[in-house]
Amino acid sequence: MSRRRVALIGASGLVGQRFCQLLTDHPYFEEPDLYAWQRSERKLQEILKVSPDTISSSLLEQKLRTINISNILKDGYDAIFSAIPSNLQENIEIELASRGSRIFSNSGLNRMRAEVPIIVPEVNDSHFALVEGRDGFVVANGNCSSIGLALPLKPLLGFGPEHVEVTTMQALSGAGYPGVPSLDAVSNLVPYIESEEEKIVNEIPKILGSVGSNTIEAANLQIDATCTRVPVREGHTESVAIRFRDDPDPLELREALSHFRGTPQEKSLPTAPIHPVIVEDFPDRPQPALDLWRGGTGRSRGMAVTVGRLRVKKNEARFVTLSHNTVRGAAGGSVLNAELAYSRGLI
Amino acid sequence: MSRRRVALIGASGLVGQRFCQLLTDHPYFEEPDLYAWQRSERKLQEILKVSPDTISSSLLEQKLRTINISNILKDGYDAIFSAIPSNLQENIEIELASRGSRIFSNSGLNRMRAEVPIIVPEVNDSHFALVEGRDGFVVANGNCSSIGLALPLKPLLGFGPEHVEVTTMQALSGAGYPGVPSLDAVSNLVPYIESEEEKIVNEIPKILGSVGSNTIEAANLQIDATCTRVPVREGHTESVAIRFRDDPDPLELREALSHFRGTPQEKSLPTAPIHPVIVEDFPDRPQPALDLWRGGTGRSRGMAVTVGRLRVKKNEARFVTLSHNTVRGAAGGSVLNAELAYSRGLI
Amino acid sequence: MSRRRVALIGASGLVGQRFCQLLTDHPYFEEPDLYAWQRSERKLQEILKVSPDTISSSLLEQKLRTINISNILKDGYDAIFSAIPSNLQENIEIELASRGSRIFSNSGLNRMRAEVPIIVPEVNDSHFALVEGRDGFVVANGNCSSIGLALPLKPLLGFGPEHVEVTTMQALSGAGYPGVPSLDAVSNLVPYIESEEEKIVNEIPKILGSVGSNTIEAANLQIDATCTRVPVREGHTESVAIRFRDDPDPLELREALSHFRGTPQEKSLPTAPIHPVIVEDFPDRPQPALDLWRGGTGRSRGMAVTVGRLRVKKNEARFVTLSHNTVRGAAGGSVLNAELAYSRGLI
Amino acid sequence: MSRRRVALIGASGLVGQRFCQLLTDHPYFEEPDLYAWQRSERKLQEILKVSPDTISSSLLEQKLRTINISNILKDGYDAIFSAIPSNLQENIEIELASRGSRIFSNSGLNRMRAEVPIIVPEVNDSHFALVEGRDGFVVANGNCSSIGLALPLKPLLGFGPEHVEVTTMQALSGAGYPGVPSLDAVSNLVPYIESEEEKIVNEIPKILGSVGSNTIEAANLQIDATCTRVPVREGHTESVAIRFRDDPDPLELREALSHFRGTPQEKSLPTAPIHPVIVEDFPDRPQPALDLWRGGTGRSRGMAVTVGRLRVKKNEARFVTLSHNTVRGAAGGSVLNAELAYSRGLI
Repeated sequence: MSRRRVALIGASGLVGQRFCQLLTDHPYFEEPDLYAWQRSERKLQEILKVSPDTISSSLLEQKLRTINISNILKDGYDAIFSAIPSNLQENIEIELASRGSRIFSNSGLNRMRAEVPIIVPEVNDSHFALVEGRDGFVVANGNCSSIGLALPLKPLLGFGPEHVEVTTMQALSGAGYPGVPSLDAVSNLVPYIESEEEKIVNEIPKILGSVGSNTIEAANLQIDATCTRVPVREGHTESVAIRFRDDPDPLELREALSHFRGTPQEKSLPTAPIHPVIVEDFPDRPQPALDLWRGGTGRSRGMAVTVGRLRVKKNEARFVTLSHNTVRGAAGGSVLNAELAYSRGLI
Repeated sequence: MSRRRVALIGASGLVGQRFCQLLTDHPYFEEPDLYAWQRSERKLQEILKVSPDTISSSLLEQKLRTINISNILKDGYDAIFSAIPSNLQENIEIELASRGSRIFSNSGLNRMRAEVPIIVPEVNDSHFALVEGRDGFVVANGNCSSIGLALPLKPLLGFGPEHVEVTTMQALSGAGYPGVPSLDAVSNLVPYIESEEEKIVNEIPKILGSVGSNTIEAANLQIDATCTRVPVREGHTESVAIRFRDDPDPLELREALSHFRGTPQEKSLPTAPIHPVIVEDFPDRPQPALDLWRGGTGRSRGMAVTVGRLRVKKNEARFVTLSHNTVRGAAGGSVLNAELAYSRGLI
Repeated sequence: MSRRRVALIGASGLVGQRFCQLLTDHPYFEEPDLYAWQRSERKLQEILKVSPDTISSSLLEQKLRTINISNILKDGYDAIFSAIPSNLQENIEIELASRGSRIFSNSGLNRMRAEVPIIVPEVNDSHFALVEGRDGFVVANGNCSSIGLALPLKPLLGFGPEHVEVTTMQALSGAGYPGVPSLDAVSNLVPYIESEEEKIVNEIPKILGSVGSNTIEAANLQIDATCTRVPVREGHTESVAIRFRDDPDPLELREALSHFRGTPQEKSLPTAPIHPVIVEDFPDRPQPALDLWRGGTGRSRGMAVTVGRLRVKKNEARFVTLSHNTVRGAAGGSVLNAELAYSRGLI
Repeated sequence: MSRRRVALIGASGLVGQRFCQLLTDHPYFEEPDLYAWQRSERKLQEILKVSPDTISSSLLEQKLRTINISNILKDGYDAIFSAIPSNLQENIEIELASRGSRIFSNSGLNRMRAEVPIIVPEVNDSHFALVEGRDGFVVANGNCSSIGLALPLKPLLGFGPEHVEVTTMQALSGAGYPGVPSLDAVSNLVPYIESEEEKIVNEIPKILGSVGSNTIEAANLQIDATCTRVPVREGHTESVAIRFRDDPDPLELREALSHFRGTPQEKSLPTAPIHPVIVEDFPDRPQPALDLWRGGTGRSRGMAVTVGRLRVKKNEARFVTLSHNTVRGAAGGSVLNAELAYSRGLI
C-alpha cells in the first residue's frame, strides 16, 4: 500500500514539533507539508523548541508555509493533522472538513461539537462510526489531561465507577511556548489552569460514552477535578480517587488495568504501545524522570500511561497516573487515531 | 515578667534553624542554648541551610553542644524545644519529660502516644488539659501536612464534614537536609512520601478530637490522602475535597474560614497571625512564590494558611491550601504552642 | 526634617514592586504615588508578583494611575523613582527631567547619555557633581549585572586591574514578568541575554570613571563578558577573573574587599548595609539560597554583595560574586542613590 | 568477527546505567555482565535512575553480581568497563589490569597515573601507544568537564593557545545519585565542586600532550577554572575564553571547529558522531533542553559537543560549549575508546 500524503497545520508550536517527530519515517504517512500562521517562511530548525535529534533532517530543513485554506485544499491531502491553538476566531478545521478534508486534530476548538468524536484510540474507536461515510470530518483527541485519565478509566468501567475525584499536577509543556512564565514555575506551583477542569469534566463522559444514531451519548459518570501546574517540563501526573457502586476485588482491578488492550494493540498499529496502561508496583512511581517515555521502543516511546500507588479500599480505588502530555496526550494520540482510520480504510 | 530559659535540641537541621529565627528576640523566651547530635561543636553559622539574615548574630556564633540528658537536666530549662528526627532509637523527649522537662516538640516520634497531645494552637488548645498539673510533659505539634489541613478543617466542623480527600504537593524542605536528591526533584515529581499519608489520616482526628478524662477521643472523620513531593523549596500545597452530611451555604462556609480566630488571636500572642486562615479569591492562588510568608509582619510572617480555589457544590466543598511547612508546619507551630503554655502559666 | 513627596513610575513590574517594599515606612520619603502604563487602574495587590508580606497595606490597596506627564508634573514631587522598561519610544525620564523633575532611575534607557551619571552609591557618589545645581536631572543606577561587579571592583582599583573576564549566571527575575518562558528555564540554561554583555562592558568604565568638567571620563579597564540565564529566581552570580599590572598581596586584596566602605556607610544612610561587600570563606559560597538577602536586618536586607571563592595567583585574582538583582541591583540601588541625594541636599 | 565478552563494574550508579544504554545491542560487544558493590543481588530495573526505555529488557532483568576480583578474572572477559567511584580504598582497576584485564574506565581513580592514558577518542588516540603490547591495562577517559573542553580545544591547537579561562555550569547528574541535595539545587547555584577545578587543570594538558617513550609529555597550556553546579539535570555548559599567541582568523577558527574529525569518524565507529563538534550560530545556543542529545541518531545520540556564542577578538576567542556529561563525558567516551581499541586489535 502506498503511503498517504499528509499536511500538518499549526506546525510552529510545541505540539506541532512533536507531530514532526512522530511523522518522521512513518510507515503509513509521507513526511507532512508544514503550515503555520506564526513564524511561517522560516525553517523548522530555526524555531525548534524540542530536541532535534529525532526529527528527520528534511523536516528540519522544510520551510513552513503560511496557512491558506485554498492552497491546502488544492494540494488534495489524504489527511491533515492539526495542532492549531484553541483560541482562534475562524474555525479552519471545520472549514476544511466541510470541503472534504479529513482532520486529525489535537485542538480543543471542536471537541465538544456533536459531529466531532473525541477518540482515544484504545478506549473508543467505535466512535469512528460518527464519521464513517462522510467525505470530510474532524476526529479530535482528548485534552492532554483527559487522555491520561480516560485510559485507566476504560478498563475499570466494568467495576461500576460512580464518581471520580482527580487532582492533576500538569507539566509546563502543556501550556506551549512561551506558555508559563518561569517566575510562576521555578520553585512554585500554580493551582489553576484556565478551562482545564471543565475539559476533563466534559470530555471524559463523552469519550466513555456510547454511539447512538449519529451522536454520542455521554457516559453517566460524575467527575470533579482540581488542576495544578507544577515545575516539570513534560509529563502530566494525576492523583485519582474512584468510588464504585460495589466493592471491587483488588487483584481483579489491578489485572484489568495491566491486561488492558485495545484495537491499536490487536491491529499492531505502528505507534501503539504493547500495553497502553503499565502498572508499576514500586511505591515511589510513576515519576516523570523515569516513566515519561514508556510504551516500548522507537515509534511507541511515550505512548503508555503508567499507573502506580494503586490502593483499593472497600468500594474505592486510588492511584496515580502519568502520561506524556505532548506525545500520548497530544501528537501521538492524533497519529494513532490516523493509523486507526487508515486501518479502517477511512483515509 | 522575666523571660524563660529555654533549650533547643536537634538544632543542626533545617527545622532547628527555623526555631533559631523564631526565637531571635522573642519577648517570652531567652535565646535558646543549642544542642545536637550531629555536627555539634560547630557554630550554627558553619552549618546553616537557611538564610542567615533573620537569625541573631549571637545565635549564629553559638557553638552547638552535644546532646546529653544529664547536662540538659542540670541546666534546669523552663522549656525545651525539640526538632529531633523521628527515626531515633532512644526516646530522649520522653526521658526528659519523665524527669520534669516541658518539651515543645516538632518531632513525629511521640505524637500518637496517649499522654502526648498534638496541639495546633488555633484548633485545640483545650488539649493542654492533658498535661496540666504534670511536672514534665511533651506537647507535640502536628506533622507539617496535618497542620496545613487541620487549620482550615477546624472552622468547617460546624458544617458536619464526613469525608476528606486530600492530595498533597509537598515542598522539598519537608524532608530536611540533605533530604530529597536533586535528581528526584528537578523537573520531576515523586508521588510518595514514606509514612506521610498515615500521619495525616491518624493525626487529624486526634487534633480535632475532644478531651476525655486523661485522654483524647478522636473525631469521627474519615480521611484519605495521597502525598506527593514537588520541586518547590518551601510551602506545602494541598488539594482538598470535603463531603458534608448536608449542603452548606457557600457564603457561610467562606466566612467561617476567613473569620476564623483562635485563642492565640484572642490573647494576641507574639507569633500569632492576625488571621490563621486567609481566603484568597484570585483564581490562581495560593502560590508558594506569593503566599508562603503571609500572616502579618515580623514575628508572625509565614504563620497563616492561605486557602484558595474555594468551590462549594451541593454537599461538597473543594479548596487548595498552602502553608509554610517549616514555619507554621513546624518550628512556628511549636513556638506558638509554647506561647500558649506560657500564657496559661504552664511554663 | 519633613519626608519628601515621591512618585514611582513603572510601578506595575517586578522592580516597581521591589521599590514598594523598600519605600514602605521609609524615614526620608513618604509612600510613593504609583504610576504605570500597563495594568493601571488596578490595585497593586491585584498584580503582585512578589511576596506581599513586606509591603504596607496602604500601598497594596493603592490604585495605579496611568502615566501622564502633565499630571505627574502638576503634583510637584520632590523626587521620582523610575522602573520603566528600556524599550520605550518616548523618553519620559528625559522629558520629566527637562521640566524640573529629579529622577532616580533603574531604567537602562538613559544610562549612557553624557549628562546622566550612573551612580553605585558606595562606588562613585562623586558623580553627583554632574547634576548638582541643575533643576531637574536623571540619576541612573547601573544594570543589575554591572552593579554586582562594580562593587567588588571598586576596592581593587588600587591594585591596578588591567583586564576583567566575567561569566554571569543571572536570575530569572532579571527579565521581569512574564520574562523568561519556563521551558527555557526549568532544567535548562540559556547562554545569552540580549544587550547584557554590552551593558557590562560600557557601564563599568563609566561607573569607575572620574568626573571631568561636566562629563565623566571612563576608566581605562578592559572588560569581556559572557552572560547566561540560569534557573534561579533571584540573585545574579558572576564568576570573575581579574588580571593586574603587578602581583597583589593576597591578604591585602582580601582585606580591601572586606573592609570596603563608602559614603552610604559613613553617613549611615537608612538602606546602607554595614558592609557593601561581604567576603565569605566557606568554599561553597556564595549561594542564592543562603546569601541573597545579606546586608543587615530590616531595610538593608539584600543590599550587600557576597564574594566567595577568592583565589589570588601571581598577578591574577578570581572570585565569585552574588548580588540581589532586584534589590541591590535595581530598586535598592536607586533608593540608596536618592538617600545620598537627600543627604547632599539635592532633593 | 565475533562480539567481545565484556563486564561492567560499578553498574549500580548513574554512569553504570548509561553504559547499559550504550551497550544495548552493540555490534562489537555482547551485553555486559553487571557487577556492583552496592545494591548488588538486585535487578537493574529495581534500582534504575535513568529512563528505562532504551535499555534492553534482558539487561533490565539482569541481577547485579557483587564485585569479586577472582570471579571477574575467572570469567575471562575480553574487556571490562568501569564506572566505579573514585573514592575507593582498594584500587580494583589496577588490580585487574595487573592480572591481564583490559579496563575502559570512567573512574577518576587512576587518570593521573603515568601508565594510564586519558583518551578522548577524537583527540588523542595516539596515546593508545602507552598500552600497546601490554597484557592488561587501564584506559581512562577524562573527567566529564575535561572532555567537553578537550574536544573543542583540539582543533584550535594549530592557532597557538596560551591560556584558557573556563567557568563551568555543571549538571546535577555529574554528582551521581543521591548526589546533590535538592535544597542546594532548586532555584540555587553552588559555585564549587570539590576537586573539579584541579581535574580540568591537570587532565587537559595530559590529554593534549604528546607520546614520549612510555610516557605522556603534557602540553604547555595554562588553564584556570571555576566550577559551579547549576539546576540542570544533564549537560555541562562551559564558558571558555582562550588567549592565543597571535590573532587567529575568525573564519578559519570557526571552520577548524566545525570541520574537526578524528579517528572515530574516519573509521566510522558505531558510537562516533558525524561531527564531534557542532558549531551553532543561533545566538541563544547551546542549551541543554535543545542540544543535549546531538550527534546523530541512534547509537551516537548525545556524543557531539555543541559550541555556540563564538566570538573572536584580536588574539582571543570566546565560546560556550555543551556536552552530555553522562554520555559523551562518561559512558559514551569509554565505549568509544573500547571501539577504538577493538578496531586496533587491542581487544
